[in-house]
Amino acid sequence: MDGNGLHEVANPSEMFLAERSVEIAGTSIFPSLEGTRPILVEVQALVSNANYGTPQRNVNGFDVKRLGMLIAVLEKRIGLAMGTKDVFVNLVGGLRVDDPAADLSILCSIASSTMDKTMGENIVLLGEVGLAGEVRSINRLEQRLVEAATLGFKKAVVPIASVNEKVKNINIELYPVKFVKDAFKVLF
Amino acid sequence: MDGNGLHEVANPSEMFLAERSVEIAGTSIFPSLEGTRPILVEVQALVSNANYGTPQRNVNGFDVKRLGMLIAVLEKRIGLAMGTKDVFVNLVGGLRVDDPAADLSILCSIASSTMDKTMGENIVLLGEVGLAGEVRSINRLEQRLVEAATLGFKKAVVPIASVNEKVKNINIELYPVKFVKDAFKVLF
Amino acid sequence: MDGNGLHEVANPSEMFLAERSVEIAGTSIFPSLEGTRPILVEVQALVSNANYGTPQRNVNGFDVKRLGMLIAVLEKRIGLAMGTKDVFVNLVGGLRVDDPAADLSILCSIASSTMDKTMGENIVLLGEVGLAGEVRSINRLEQRLVEAATLGFKKAVVPIASVNEKVKNINIELYPVKFVKDAFKVLF
Amino acid sequence: MDGNGLHEVANPSEMFLAERSVEIAGTSIFPSLEGTRPILVEVQALVSNANYGTPQRNVNGFDVKRLGMLIAVLEKRIGLAMGTKDVFVNLVGGLRVDDPAADLSILCSIASSTMDKTMGENIVLLGEVGLAGEVRSINRLEQRLVEAATLGFKKAVVPIASVNEKVKNINIELYPVKFVKDAFKVLF
Amino acid sequence: MDGNGLHEVANPSEMFLAERSVEIAGTSIFPSLEGTRPILVEVQALVSNANYGTPQRNVNGFDVKRLGMLIAVLEKRIGLAMGTKDVFVNLVGGLRVDDPAADLSILCSIASSTMDKTMGENIVLLGEVGLAGEVRSINRLEQRLVEAATLGFKKAVVPIASVNEKVKNINIELYPVKFVKDAFKVLF
Amino acid sequence: MDGNGLHEVANPSEMFLAERSVEIAGTSIFPSLEGTRPILVEVQALVSNANYGTPQRNVNGFDVKRLGMLIAVLEKRIGLAMGTKDVFVNLVGGLRVDDPAADLSILCSIASSTMDKTMGENIVLLGEVGLAGEVRSINRLEQRLVEAATLGFKKAVVPIASVNEKVKNINIELYPVKFVKDAFKVLF
Repeated sequence: MDGNGLHEVANPSEMFLAERSVEIAGTSIFPSLEGTRPILVEVQALVSNANYGTPQRNVNGFDVKRLGMLIAVLEKRIGLAMGTKDVFVNLVGGLRVDDPAADLSILCSIASSTMDKTMGENIVLLGEVGLAGEVRSINRLEQRLVEAATLGFKKAVVPIASVNEKVKNINIELYPVKFVKDAFKVLF
Repeated sequence: MDGNGLHEVANPSEMFLAERSVEIAGTSIFPSLEGTRPILVEVQALVSNANYGTPQRNVNGFDVKRLGMLIAVLEKRIGLAMGTKDVFVNLVGGLRVDDPAADLSILCSIASSTMDKTMGENIVLLGEVGLAGEVRSINRLEQRLVEAATLGFKKAVVPIASVNEKVKNINIELYPVKFVKDAFKVLF
Repeated sequence: MDGNGLHEVANPSEMFLAERSVEIAGTSIFPSLEGTRPILVEVQALVSNANYGTPQRNVNGFDVKRLGMLIAVLEKRIGLAMGTKDVFVNLVGGLRVDDPAADLSILCSIASSTMDKTMGENIVLLGEVGLAGEVRSINRLEQRLVEAATLGFKKAVVPIASVNEKVKNINIELYPVKFVKDAFKVLF
Repeated sequence: MDGNGLHEVANPSEMFLAERSVEIAGTSIFPSLEGTRPILVEVQALVSNANYGTPQRNVNGFDVKRLGMLIAVLEKRIGLAMGTKDVFVNLVGGLRVDDPAADLSILCSIASSTMDKTMGENIVLLGEVGLAGEVRSINRLEQRLVEAATLGFKKAVVPIASVNEKVKNINIELYPVKFVKDAFKVLF
Repeated sequence: MDGNGLHEVANPSEMFLAERSVEIAGTSIFPSLEGTRPILVEVQALVSNANYGTPQRNVNGFDVKRLGMLIAVLEKRIGLAMGTKDVFVNLVGGLRVDDPAADLSILCSIASSTMDKTMGENIVLLGEVGLAGEVRSINRLEQRLVEAATLGFKKAVVPIASVNEKVKNINIELYPVKFVKDAFKVLF
Repeated sequence: MDGNGLHEVANPSEMFLAERSVEIAGTSIFPSLEGTRPILVEVQALVSNANYGTPQRNVNGFDVKRLGMLIAVLEKRIGLAMGTKDVFVNLVGGLRVDDPAADLSILCSIASSTMDKTMGENIVLLGEVGLAGEVRSINRLEQRLVEAATLGFKKAVVPIASVNEKVKNINIELYPVKFVKDAFKVLF
């Protein structure tokens, strides 16, 4: 994929996976919904020491107040010191997501960049995060996982309360978690 | 409910109660209204010492000015020192509530997290809170309590002025209160 | 009205008066208009020394800039030092009022809480307040007073310029005032 | 007009003039337009030394940025030091005016309160104010002056460029001015 | 044009020119478009040393962010120190302009007030200004110049790239410029 | 192109290229889309040391939060110190672009002005930029490049993942890049 290696890409899923920046900390994949249609979204976080004055909280495509809550959970429930960090979060492609199911993906991307640890390949993250640090159930988990499996993803971290027999039959390895700290054991 | 203990959940009320994070301070249940339909909402608060600069006031799903008023009541009428605390409040599921009847639930969640005391299981909280620290009457108390009782809740802290014969006949134990401090005697 | 003393309330006016927190400084009643229908609104103020940084100006249901003007009148025309105080104002029931006729009620509630003096029972307050500290005429005074009298209120502080023969025939004791300081002589 | 002197007011213009607070510095009258209908508006300003932190700029019923421009003219063209003053401006009756013709009335009210000098009785002020300190022509001067004359006003400070034969025939004494400083010679 | 010299004004253009404050630095004329109809707008700037705290940037009728960009060009490309100056910009008559063609007029008005130099009589200014300090082409130059000529203006500073044969045939002297600094050579 | 060298411009593309300020650092060309119609936009950046207080972030025609993210990428991934710089970004002609495909052009313009290096003539820049510093695929690359080639542009820096056979057949030299740093090798 150097400057000469140009070739046509036929399958959008292939392209999606090809372009992922998996080797870089701070990136994760969230199976979002556009209406009822599932669409995979790459979430990127960039965390670094704040060099100048007030730490920045800059987010494109997600509610900045909800971002503040997720950073509070990271700090108070997991123990990561975030107060002197600049935090940037970006949803690739200019998308906007208002679905609390994206919480876990955004939180783990921030943690990944903060700790400079990647989260492994071919994994998707799903779950609303509460202030107690718990991972809560979400809607339409089955549809989201089917789309992720179709696009070649192999693993999914999901809320334990959303798992049922239908979900277990999808061709993707499930990691049901009750708390954010359980997800961290799987990912880092 | 470990990583292997997956099972299907048939009844939504059961699921609702199953997922509650009762063992953690800062959580309470408010019977809200979506139009005229009652719907139970979990309110979460996270209060901790402000480590960096200005204390944060971060709320998802509720008016931030009303939050400021409730924090003032906690400070001036109950005597909890809130000025050097970060306060986060979250309504689970991305819901938004503009009903003053949620005041008591939000205020008690903040107090619960501040004092690190849980409020007991199977209890719902209802009531508008005034600046004098009083708990004021609310609308549709009967409907809200019927829904809570149906979902398995056993106790309800309610405004004394809203209690009538119909309400007393619902299968839920009533704790009528006139002031916030009366509710605190019941809860903590 | 202790925890056991539950009884049904038949008359809304009775309930309204029953729930009033008259014994606490900072509370007053303003006969508002919802369209052309009069509705009594309880105004609550909570004023205390600002403990942390910038004094707070927090108002629910009323314009915050107009609140700033009323605080200026209290400070410049009456001589109350408000600059190091937190000021909270709340209209009970989540109501919103954009009517300058509420000025006098809000201003007197703030003064009542600042001086920790109650304003007496069964009194309503009406009047626009100007920057010169004068109490100005308002519209539909007659209708508002009739409603207040019907609900059992006995006294009304009103703008002197709005008083006419019709108003004088209503079954409520009138205290016509020209300046805010005249109202203070009646109330405190 | 003491507490006992109640009497009915038949004529609205009479009432308007009766209620004016002419003896207090900071007040002036501006003939505004509600659509094409003239309506007299009382403009009030309250200027005092800023006791706490940043000087306040608090305006009800007028654009705060335009207020900033008028204060700049007072400071740079007339030489009044406004930077350490709190400035409050209020349009009586909760009215809102977006008409630059109100500039002169607002500017002179601020100056009147700053210098603690009244502007005399029965006078109306009209004119847009430019950054050079000039008083600029306005629309519908004739209609506005007719209304003022009808309500009993005797004098009008007006932009020199708006004066024509029709305007000169109205029963009100004209003081045409080219600059703000000319108006000040008439008023103070 | 003293206090007695009242006379009717028949021709609007004559009035427009009569009222201009040409003898005062900080004023320029911009031929704007109201839809497709040309209308001449007087732009006024007032620049002075900031006496108190943060320098003010106060603009009526133009985008404040675009003003910030023009001030940056003045500072970085022309070398005027603007950082400790209060800058006020006003479009006379309460007009609002969103057309980048006004850039040159606004920028030159600010420079004129900063340097306290007038720009000469009967001149109009037109051109978008880029961050490189260049004056860029604008739309409908011909129409705008015809209107200016009709109203008696004699000179026009215009973007060199917008000049064509039609424009050269209008009865107004053209000063085509490529950079802001070229316009300054013509004006100051 | 001096003050006398006036001549008519027949071809809009010619005019577009003629007016470009290629010799000045901070300028680049982005082939934007107006609906589905391609339109070339000149992006200008002006970066200089912040002389007074907080560094300015001033952008016309692009989202200021996205600008913050691009500046973060420049700082964290490329190593340019931006924290003490004023950054101004302007889209020529008053255009507004919400397309993430403009990221690379804006980022490179800022870098060009920061380093005071021009980017060479006749080149267009295209690509979404992620927080990992990668250049991501964009939509309608073919259409955009055809328009650029038609207007006389010779080179294009494009996301490697968007290049296919159709794109390679356009009469413009392609520089496919995977990361921002690859684009910098081509440009600076």
